[in-house]
Amino acid sequence: MPLPIIGVMGPGDQAAAPTIEQSYQLGYLIGQRGWVVLSGGRNVGVMEAVSRGAKDANGLVVGILPDGDRSRLSPFVDIAIVTDLGNARNNINVLSSDIVVALEGGMGTLSEVALALKSGKPVLLLNWSDAARTWLVSASPLITIVSTPEEAVTQVAHILDSTF
Amino acid sequence: MPLPIIGVMGPGDQAAAPTIEQSYQLGYLIGQRGWVVLSGGRNVGVMEAVSRGAKDANGLVVGILPDGDRSRLSPFVDIAIVTDLGNARNNINVLSSDIVVALEGGMGTLSEVALALKSGKPVLLLNWSDAARTWLVSASPLITIVSTPEEAVTQVAHILDSTF
Amino acid sequence: MPLPIIGVMGPGDQAAAPTIEQSYQLGYLIGQRGWVVLSGGRNVGVMEAVSRGAKDANGLVVGILPDGDRSRLSPFVDIAIVTDLGNARNNINVLSSDIVVALEGGMGTLSEVALALKSGKPVLLLNWSDAARTWLVSASPLITIVSTPEEAVTQVAHILDSTF
Amino acid sequence: MPLPIIGVMGPGDQAAAPTIEQSYQLGYLIGQRGWVVLSGGRNVGVMEAVSRGAKDANGLVVGILPDGDRSRLSPFVDIAIVTDLGNARNNINVLSSDIVVALEGGMGTLSEVALALKSGKPVLLLNWSDAARTWLVSASPLITIVSTPEEAVTQVAHILDSTF
Repeated sequence: MPLPIIGVMGPGDQAAAPTIEQSYQLGYLIGQRGWVVLSGGRNVGVMEAVSRGAKDANGLVVGILPDGDRSRLSPFVDIAIVTDLGNARNNINVLSSDIVVALEGGMGTLSEVALALKSGKPVLLLNWSDAARTWLVSASPLITIVSTPEEAVTQVAHILDSTF
Repeated sequence: MPLPIIGVMGPGDQAAAPTIEQSYQLGYLIGQRGWVVLSGGRNVGVMEAVSRGAKDANGLVVGILPDGDRSRLSPFVDIAIVTDLGNARNNINVLSSDIVVALEGGMGTLSEVALALKSGKPVLLLNWSDAARTWLVSASPLITIVSTPEEAVTQVAHILDSTF
Repeated sequence: MPLPIIGVMGPGDQAAAPTIEQSYQLGYLIGQRGWVVLSGGRNVGVMEAVSRGAKDANGLVVGILPDGDRSRLSPFVDIAIVTDLGNARNNINVLSSDIVVALEGGMGTLSEVALALKSGKPVLLLNWSDAARTWLVSASPLITIVSTPEEAVTQVAHILDSTF
Repeated sequence: MPLPIIGVMGPGDQAAAPTIEQSYQLGYLIGQRGWVVLSGGRNVGVMEAVSRGAKDANGLVVGILPDGDRSRLSPFVDIAIVTDLGNARNNINVLSSDIVVALEGGMGTLSEVALALKSGKPVLLLNWSDAARTWLVSASPLITIVSTPEEAVTQVAHILDSTF
């Protein structure tokens, strides 16, 4: 049986300090539960923070790199998947995840939310602006709004329980 | 010199009649100008209508199929690119286009808008809901709102002139 | 109806002068017949030569770039498909071609031959070494050995006639 | 630090009994050493056997599926990467592997060997026919011929030692 994979998506270079802090906590809580954390694999922003958090909880971390080698890999990734697909790898991020947790970021993160919903994946939005989440919630029943990493993980557990 | 390519994105199976009509007109006007029309290549919705319009104006039509063969190809496509990439082909749609015109659709179309903006492509939004376009316009300076196919083509000409 | 697409694959930077000359002739003859030439799109080696040949015969040229932009595009390409997929775009090259003509090159070309055969595409080998073609012919009934660009184009016509 | 990943490539449906047995042993020996086994992820042929072997040795198994869901996933895979890329995922298999071990198979396996060599990855050929390996060895210095799973794992250890 494959392990449950929780994809965490969010900004890279542009991530603000509170977003980094939440990502770290999210990674820690996911790792503690024994679920695999999946991120975009690079050594910046949400990708780095969620990986670091999961490692601190002895979790297993998968990084799906857009690059053709490991030169920008986060040191907290255990399993590096090297795709060389650029942004086309965003679709792999969401297809490989049982559930996607997205922190508001730029257009890369939005593309992941859209691709996840297109493929019928449950999506948790953590700390998105009102304008963004109001529209997205109206567009898809697969979205759940959460306010904290703890609430995200509670919802993940609930969805995993009802799916498997 | 490569030909200018105008990507037209929008709903497939779920396209409403006015959207189909606008897509046809858009294809016709793009074909008339001598620009290449690029779509997702399938024989439904906006993909089919924009291709049909362009052919009626003797335009050249490129279809970027998500499938591994041509079984669902629109008969109005001249150049069929068979990707077998599923939704990952959405990134090819936008990277290959000089400008993207998007009619409001589902999550596939939203992913294309997001991926286009992520890669710095100009995006024209044609007939999107207020909620959607308000948020997107606030998120990126690369977006222009247009109300008709004629206005879209005028904007495309303006952007092409200032770019080349 | 989509136009017939003939994919021509072969070495980039490492192409020898006779290979370049044959690629040019192949492109010219394909263009003359009114078929579309498809190549890897870059401005070197077989990609450049086959595109130049096809343009000199007023043919239509499609280039499937591995890159994320057009900075290395051959100036003889009409339709530039920007994939940003690296070598994963090799699979698109062969899936989009009705027939693949391969000039012996390096491992990129070999991967295209293998992917073409895997997907059931007819493959013409032009000027491969004895060791390579003996083994490949024994491995697949889809391969035809040809000795000149003229012979390649005669075979292409024969295969297109029997397929369509 | 990412874990060392050993990619094992070979036939799916067409795998002969001795190939299955060797794949199982290879998976077992790789798992015993604490390296990650990477395969194409499906529940047939070499993909299934190498995964089963690695699990029997308490190894960690990554499967890179060509499909858009897990319906054909081997039950012995721990981390399922769902690509929906068809054969384009072959490039991810090799880019993500530190070393590729290939058992002679069909054209899919040959494409993986070619893509691995194109990207500079060390490739071990296990039980390929004379004609195939003679030609491949002459074409690339990155190839090592091995005769048994034990010899393959000894070579892997040697290459990992000299690389890291």
